[in-house]
Amino acid sequence: MTVIGLGMMGAALAGAFLKAGHPTTVWNRSAGKADALVEQGAGLAANVGEAVAAGDIVVVCVVDYDAMHAILDPVGDALAGKVMVNLTSGLPEDAREAAKWAERLGAQYLDGYIMTVPPAVGLPQTLLFYGGSKETFEAHQDTLKVLGGNSVHLGPDAGIAALYDLALLGILWSTLTSALHGFALVGSEKVPAAALLPFAEAWITHVALPSIKGAAQQVDAGEFATNISTVGLNAAGLVKMIKASEAQGIRPDLMVPIKDFLAKRVADGHGADALASMIEVIRNPE
Amino acid sequence: MTVIGLGMMGAALAGAFLKAGHPTTVWNRSAGKADALVEQGAGLAANVGEAVAAGDIVVVCVVDYDAMHAILDPVGDALAGKVMVNLTSGLPEDAREAAKWAERLGAQYLDGYIMTVPPAVGLPQTLLFYGGSKETFEAHQDTLKVLGGNSVHLGPDAGIAALYDLALLGILWSTLTSALHGFALVGSEKVPAAALLPFAEAWITHVALPSIKGAAQQVDAGEFATNISTVGLNAAGLVKMIKASEAQGIRPDLMVPIKDFLAKRVADGHGADALASMIEVIRNPE
Ligand SMILES: NC(=O)c1ccc[n+]([C@@H]2O[C@H](COP(=O)([O-])OP(=O)(O)OC[C@H]3O[C@@H](n4cnc5c(N)ncnc54)[C@H](OP(=O)(O)O)[C@@H]3O)[C@@H](O)[C@H]2O)c1
Ligand SMILES: NC(=O)c1ccc[n+]([C@@H]2O[C@H](COP(=O)([O-])OP(=O)(O)OC[C@H]3O[C@@H](n4cnc5c(N)ncnc54)[C@H](OP(=O)(O)O)[C@@H]3O)[C@@H](O)[C@H]2O)c1
Repeated sequence: MTVIGLGMMGAALAGAFLKAGHPTTVWNRSAGKADALVEQGAGLAANVGEAVAAGDIVVVCVVDYDAMHAILDPVGDALAGKVMVNLTSGLPEDAREAAKWAERLGAQYLDGYIMTVPPAVGLPQTLLFYGGSKETFEAHQDTLKVLGGNSVHLGPDAGIAALYDLALLGILWSTLTSALHGFALVGSEKVPAAALLPFAEAWITHVALPSIKGAAQQVDAGEFATNISTVGLNAAGLVKMIKASEAQGIRPDLMVPIKDFLAKRVADGHGADALASMIEVIRNPE
Repeated sequence: MTVIGLGMMGAALAGAFLKAGHPTTVWNRSAGKADALVEQGAGLAANVGEAVAAGDIVVVCVVDYDAMHAILDPVGDALAGKVMVNLTSGLPEDAREAAKWAERLGAQYLDGYIMTVPPAVGLPQTLLFYGGSKETFEAHQDTLKVLGGNSVHLGPDAGIAALYDLALLGILWSTLTSALHGFALVGSEKVPAAALLPFAEAWITHVALPSIKGAAQQVDAGEFATNISTVGLNAAGLVKMIKASEAQGIRPDLMVPIKDFLAKRVADGHGADALASMIEVIRNPE
């Protein structure tokens, strides 16, 4: 086992392999970061070539794909016959290019995402997404699950893990920002965030989650009938939301694209559809 | 008990009062909508004046504040000495004006929001928000709880229930739209929404909800220190998200204001703060 990149995340990955009893060789650009791992029994490679040579599986976790290539391009040939597991974050297209590059060098390639923070690496519930060859994943999943018990192969596209990662990050960003919008709304009347919080939590659990579940079904079925909450009704609601936000002196920006998506559906004659039909606007840029 | 407005929601309200044994008089612009309620024992008022006169508590639930005024302005004096409970949706400022109007007429005024759909009216867990006089709420809460066991008085501002309602709606709209964005992202690689759904659900429960809870504490404390997920790191993530969305052929619009909020924080020298510090941008329009 080789781990290249010993930043916060790489160090946690190497630590998990060592803890699970896997002989592990490590390398990092700044050598000092290996010290604690060497004390825990890691082998320290003198250079990248030696690091790649030492393991059948080469895990790479550095800041971005440029850093990954800066490290590995000079020793590319050494990857022949190896399983490269890239846990570096990037765009789906970065992952797809890296997969082609690794395969040209004769390596098997998996592109993964660690869906948590370094201290959670190695726990049974920790989620990692993988894309790339299913055979490669299945051949090595027992080893990979050392990093997180909930390691999932999503498909043969090397970019698919990056897409799932982005999808979840987008949900986190929007949900958090909308909660901040809510805190700002009630805050404009001197109500603390703590007063809205329990309602927001219950609302997300009991209203938003079921809506998302229903939306998933409608999206997959391509059927957007509803007799409850139409595009038209919510389009009017968004206009009200923006007006009320401005009247309270807060920025409505987050609500503007949602208003625009709904207005486009209304203009296209789909005002009676369910909210989930907004996906037709999102996935069909002009 | 009087209920004015027998649309989907008003009919459910009147039905709940009847079921709980409250003598209830009803009125609706289109008289036919009262028929089913009259069969259940409701009294049918011949006109609005008679309806208002019939009950000590006058519940109004019509499409908007214009409709409410169109109905009640002509018989305003009849409201003297009554408790008017307005469950019509509008802007906080509509509610505040209605409160002044009702008080001028000698009525006590509560402005409420039903946080669910008509079939859930009358259940013990059903949430209703109220703003206005606390004394009025407390004097009548046992009666009001017939409409939903979880009836909450939020404060003396008649507009406060409308603000909480908007805050929660904003969370629903954004969370749902971001899930649709995620479905579109993975859908661009022919992955069904159902494949992302269980990850999205777990992510919202185990990642987004705790983030919102942490954000509420930071907002109330005005302290945005973090050693995990900084504004700067996420600002870069948003740029990546927008690029990746466009590369997959989907509209990144929902992510653009979040990117802009974060970029503004970075530009203002707060790149090392926690994500929740975005609220400083939201609540401080230029
Ligand atoms: N931390 C998290 O919570 C987390 C969670 C999920 C995913 N990730 C992902 O994990 C990856 C690593 O993150 P991290 O938290 O470990 O970051 P980090 O602590 O900042 O470490 C960055 C790593 O990249 C190396 N590096 C940067 N530029 C380089 C270059 N030009 N050439 C060679 N090496 C270079 C650094 O080497 P030096 O030590 O020599 O600078 C270090 O090993 C990122 O893609 C990140 O998105 C992190
Ligand atoms: N339905 C829900 O899920 C829900 C949930 C929460 C809150 N609400 C709120 O509850 C309120 C009523 O909604 P709803 O679902 O009952 O709507 P609805 O079924 O469309 O009923 C609208 C009501 O408003 C009356 N109305 C409309 N324009 C009028 C006018 N110019 N003069 C007199 N009456 C007029 C209608 O009378 P006619 O019968 O004569 O047209 C009817 O009673 C709205 O503010 C809505 O936002 C609804």
